[in-house]
Formats: sequence, C-alpha cells, structure tokens
Amino acid sequence: MDSVMNPSKSPITLMTDFGADDIFVGVMKGVIHSIHPGAQIIDLTHAIPSFDIVQAAFKIRQAADYFPVGTVHVIVVDPGVGSERRAIAMKSGGHYFVAPDNGVLTFIAKRGIEECATIANPDYCLPEVSASFHGRDIFAPVGAHLLRGVRLSKLGPPLSALQELQIAAPTVNDNGTIRGEVLWADHFGNLITNIVASQLPQDAHLFVEGVDIGRLARTYADVAEGEALAMIGSFGHLEVAVRMGNAAEELRADRGTEVIARTPLA
Amino acid sequence: MDSVMNPSKSPITLMTDFGADDIFVGVMKGVIHSIHPGAQIIDLTHAIPSFDIVQAAFKIRQAADYFPVGTVHVIVVDPGVGSERRAIAMKSGGHYFVAPDNGVLTFIAKRGIEECATIANPDYCLPEVSASFHGRDIFAPVGAHLLRGVRLSKLGPPLSALQELQIAAPTVNDNGTIRGEVLWADHFGNLITNIVASQLPQDAHLFVEGVDIGRLARTYADVAEGEALAMIGSFGHLEVAVRMGNAAEELRADRGTEVIARTPLA
Amino acid sequence: MDSVMNPSKSPITLMTDFGADDIFVGVMKGVIHSIHPGAQIIDLTHAIPSFDIVQAAFKIRQAADYFPVGTVHVIVVDPGVGSERRAIAMKSGGHYFVAPDNGVLTFIAKRGIEECATIANPDYCLPEVSASFHGRDIFAPVGAHLLRGVRLSKLGPPLSALQELQIAAPTVNDNGTIRGEVLWADHFGNLITNIVASQLPQDAHLFVEGVDIGRLARTYADVAEGEALAMIGSFGHLEVAVRMGNAAEELRADRGTEVIARTPLA
Repeated sequence: MDSVMNPSKSPITLMTDFGADDIFVGVMKGVIHSIHPGAQIIDLTHAIPSFDIVQAAFKIRQAADYFPVGTVHVIVVDPGVGSERRAIAMKSGGHYFVAPDNGVLTFIAKRGIEECATIANPDYCLPEVSASFHGRDIFAPVGAHLLRGVRLSKLGPPLSALQELQIAAPTVNDNGTIRGEVLWADHFGNLITNIVASQLPQDAHLFVEGVDIGRLARTYADVAEGEALAMIGSFGHLEVAVRMGNAAEELRADRGTEVIARTPLA
Repeated sequence: MDSVMNPSKSPITLMTDFGADDIFVGVMKGVIHSIHPGAQIIDLTHAIPSFDIVQAAFKIRQAADYFPVGTVHVIVVDPGVGSERRAIAMKSGGHYFVAPDNGVLTFIAKRGIEECATIANPDYCLPEVSASFHGRDIFAPVGAHLLRGVRLSKLGPPLSALQELQIAAPTVNDNGTIRGEVLWADHFGNLITNIVASQLPQDAHLFVEGVDIGRLARTYADVAEGEALAMIGSFGHLEVAVRMGNAAEELRADRGTEVIARTPLA
Repeated sequence: MDSVMNPSKSPITLMTDFGADDIFVGVMKGVIHSIHPGAQIIDLTHAIPSFDIVQAAFKIRQAADYFPVGTVHVIVVDPGVGSERRAIAMKSGGHYFVAPDNGVLTFIAKRGIEECATIANPDYCLPEVSASFHGRDIFAPVGAHLLRGVRLSKLGPPLSALQELQIAAPTVNDNGTIRGEVLWADHFGNLITNIVASQLPQDAHLFVEGVDIGRLARTYADVAEGEALAMIGSFGHLEVAVRMGNAAEELRADRGTEVIARTPLA
C-alpha cells in the first residue's frame, strides 16, 4: 500500500439491504475500524428492500449532500454479488462513493463525475474475497482506505461508462397533465413520487389511482386530521400524505401506483 | 454566529418516531457532522410509535440521567411539524434538550429548568427550512451548535411556560387500592405501568385486567418459567412480565390496560 | 478504582436480544460514555431472538475476528438475569468479552482462553444493580472499564470452568452421508446450517427436508433466478439459498430443519 498523505476526519456512511437482524453490518464496521481506527461510521439505512437498486439510487442521491465534503459513502445493494459485475469507486461533488456497478450510482453520476475507478487492486480488499459478501470483503475495506486518504487511482483502472438504471420519468401530455408514480412509502406511510417540484405548477390538482387529493398543500396542518393531502416533501419530490394517518394504507397505494397532476386551465 | 468557547466532547443523542426504514435519521447525522465534525451520535430509539408524545416523554426522562453531564438530547416526535408550534431548547440537570414544544419535555421540565429558549435564530438552522422535516432543518443543527458550545441565549428569546402533557396519574382509593395502567409493552412483552416504586407497598397484590398476578416479586427467577409476575422494573416502574414468555401476548394487555394493586390489610 | 495505564482506542461492540424498540441499548451507550468519554460503540446486532443463547454464541464467534485486537465485545442474551448465574469477562485471541456465564461464549472459549474472571468487584459496576437489567448495570460498565485499560484481574477471582452449550454436531454415517440442521435463516431467507466447509466433500449432493438442492455451487450466479442452491457461505458454513428469492419461505425451512449431504460414490 502507498503512504497516505491526508487521513480524513470525515465520516463514512453505509447503505445496504442487509436489515438489522444479522451481523453483516456490524462485521463491515469491524473491517473499517481494523483499517482506519476511530472511523466515524453512520448508518444511512439498512432497510432498502432486498435487491431494490432503484430505491437505493434515489436515497443515496437524496442523502449525500447533507454530509460534509470528503465523506465516503458505501452502498451495498448487490444482487449480482459473485457474478462478473464490477465494483467501482467514484468521486462526485467532493464525496466518495463505493458500490457495485449495477446502476445504484446513476443519479450521483448524473450530477457530474470527478473521477471513477474499477476496483481491481487486491491490496485494498480483504486477503480472502468470498463469493457472497463483498460488503465485508471489498466495499467496506475500500471505503476505509479512501477515508485514510488513499487515492482513487490506486484502486484500479479509470472507468467512464457506468451501468445506468433505465427509469421511466413522469410524462406530460398536450393538456399539461403529468402522469407519474409512487416510488415508495416511507415509515409514516407517506407516498414519495417520481414527480419533482420543478415539474409541478403551483395550482396542480392531484389524483392517486383516481382518488381526488385536491390542490397542492404547503404543510400537513393545511388539512384536518385524517384527510389526505399532496405537498412537496422535504427532498423536493411530490408526496401524498394523510394527516396523522397512513396514506399507503388508506389509499392502498405502493410502489408503481399512478399519480396524476392536472392543471385546471391547461 | 458567535465564537465558541467551549466545544464539547459530550455525545448527542437522537430519539424519534422515524423508524429505521428511511434515511431521515442518517440525514440528521450528516447535518450534525457537517456542523460539528467528529460528533459522537447515539441513537436512543427511533421506534417511538408515530406521534406518540407520551411514550417519548417517559422514555427521554428514563434515559437522560445515564448520560454524562453536557450531553445534548434531540427529540423529534412532532405531529405538529409545519404548524405554529414552537421549537425549544432547554437546559435541565446539566443536560441539553432540543425538541418541539408539544409536551415531550414535560417530565424533564418537572425536575427543574435551568434555562429555556424558543428557537428563533435562523443562523443555527439550515438555510432552507422545509415544512415537514424539522428534525433535519432545525433540531439536528441546533443540537450540533449546542454541542459546539453555542449558548442557549443565542438561539432565541427565553421561554418559561412550556406545553405540558396532561397525563392521568394512578389513583388511590380509601382502601389503599391503587389503580394504574399499562404505558407500553417493551420488546420482551413486559408491561411497563404508570405506577412507580414509591407508591407501592411491599406486600401489594397485583391484578391485570382482573387476572391475579400475585405479590410483588423481586426478579424473574422468583417464579417458574411461563408464570406471570409483577416486579419493580429497572427504571423504577411497576412492570408485569411472564418468565421466559411474553406478558403482552399472554395477558392480552397493551397501552391503557388497567393494573390494580391491593394491599391485603388495607 | 486503580489508575489506568493503557486507555484503548479500540471499539466496543454490543450484541443483545433487546431489539430496537426500547431505550435499553441507548442507555447502555450512555453508561459507556459516562465511564469512557468518546468510546467508539458498534452495534453487532440487537435482533438475537429473545433468550437465544445458541444463535448469539455462533454469531459472536463469526463476528469477533473482523474487529481489531483490543476490541471489547459485550454480549447480553441473558434469560437468567437476577438469578445466581455468574457474570464473566474473558480475554481470548487478544479480544475482550463480557457476558453472562450461560454458554454464550462457548465457541470463543474453544479457541483458547487467555484469561477469565468472574465479575465480583462492585467498583466496576453501577452503584445500584437492578434485578432485571444487568446490561446497563454490570456488562456495559465493565466493558467500558476494560476499554479504559482496567485489567481483568481487577474485576474478580479467576474462573476456569465456564458454562458450555451442548450443541449437537452434524453426524456422519458409514456411507459418508452427513446429517446436519439449519441454525437460522438470515435477512434474505438464506438458511445457515451447522455443517462447515471442512466437513463437506466438493462433490456433495444436498437435500433440505428431502428436497433435492443439487451439487454444491460456488456462487448465487451459478443458478437461474428463482432456483435453489447450496454453497459455502461467507462465514464458512454450508448455506442454502434461492437466487433472488427467499429460501426459508420457499423451502419452508427454519431452525432445526434437517439438511443432508450425500457423496455420490460414498
């Protein structure tokens, strides 16, 4: 290994679909501490639905900017572990991202890639790499080495063409009607959609699977308890909620449920 | 922002009803690290039932004293987010508490308020404050600034009259019979009640919704496996358990279930 | 308390059956920070099934070696809390382990005990020890003191005979047929068995409760999506999985389900 010039005090974040039931995440943290004692490790979430690359891709894009420049983000949602899919490390917006090359960094890459490498140098992985747990054997150790100040170029050859997710964007027809869909329901049952604030006229009228949700509200308190409302959520996406209730249950909506925004005079 | 005289090595704790499925908690931690790099962040729990201010109020009271003086506690159980409810920061018992002013600090305030401020100074919040995620935009950044040594008086005007929860205390009748109720069931199914040790005679005889639980025991091992028992729990409340079993399921009890303590000769 | 010569920068890990719903784990962390400010605390898992000493014993053995030498591991799966069972602290392989003496350290002890003590010195526990929460009152404070550099011999008298779990090992008959069982299903539904790599011929043919799983595969990608496979998992145990599926659900298997390995020419 090379000498390290710039050991970082930045944190390292972990996002996986490993859940909280097993020791997988804990063991990744042990590997990180073995390489970089005193590392500040932050769990972004380990409850990405199994193999759901799309949800992880949205969530890492939403979360990253709230961390300080220099943060290392390790994302392990990896249905292809053990196959020929590449492992990559990327610098974007001053942050580092370590992940399988399966599209999970699609939205991070879209805002600009400063540098990207295929992980090929075994010096920065565990001595023995298993066929089923690259989070422990590759992604965690590479993340810890980046935190120590190892340069991306040491990890392997540069990479320019990443795997990209093909995700249907909301459509807009001649009348200005926007058709989008629910991406996921959050812990409160709020429905997060793929329609973002900039696409949506202020006077939009919303429908979820045909049910009239009314005009765009500003906050939960704009409606009575138990009533549904649509608002721009805290990460800039259109969200549908029920005040003091659970929209996913009450509207029987989930990933893929159609959401329509009509502009009255369009 | 003012210069900071006394950067703290104390930890900052988080208690929310955000669950573990989303990135909400992780993003709050990113905000804290952006303001106070190297912060030691501890999760108290993120499984407070949605909007359950009462449970959060009891739990922060139980937990706080086990942390060192100087600890900052951020509590976000906030059904009123986006409405006119205040955000507050309080010093009590040498600890700092940051929370919505919705009663969640009722039991902390009862033991004595050293100082309390309404959060009004935008310098200590994120530049853009959303209508639905004050955990990220107000409570986490204020907590991080307090950890850096910012004084409470910098946050906004002092506040003396807080919102208080109105919670029914156990009643005692002329015979000395105490009527209380279950506050919640813990992970093991143990029933935590609102009756505290100091109210309870040593020879009390306990009943849960009419079922005879017998005399107060000292520990689980006092009864056979599968048998119910009542004891003073580790936070000083009367608890009802089933040894190696689940009292909530076996006694079909939950929040609000009546618990009666009779004194034989009363 | 004695003066401390060697304050450690090593992390302290926690493994319990406390779940994430309560403040139990958070309070243990408060106790640790009160004794050793700045401690790096890592959650191994808090989702050990209630009182499941066997699963905890396997998991601490699997996890420990991924942490740096000097790490303190606190394991609290403790059905006998409040009874006469001992509390112990052990040094093995350069790591420290603090746990109830109920067999949970069986596999750690088997690889060699450097030193072991019964915890008897109240100076290293909380001043008041409850009958039901020794994680807070004994195990967390002892772990924090070990992290500060307190020597094992200060905790109490040495101990040589630990409680040991009696666990049925896989059997091998005259034909070379191995009969083992499922230990647990992980978050993905993969079935972890008690058969380890060294026991298993390369050309073994696997059966789960009579269902033919075929020959040992190397990785998930060796079979088509939705197909079952058997492979050596990332911790060296035979595992049965369904590619992109859930083996526990699809094979209706759980702890105790029989797993058979036949060698064709045996």
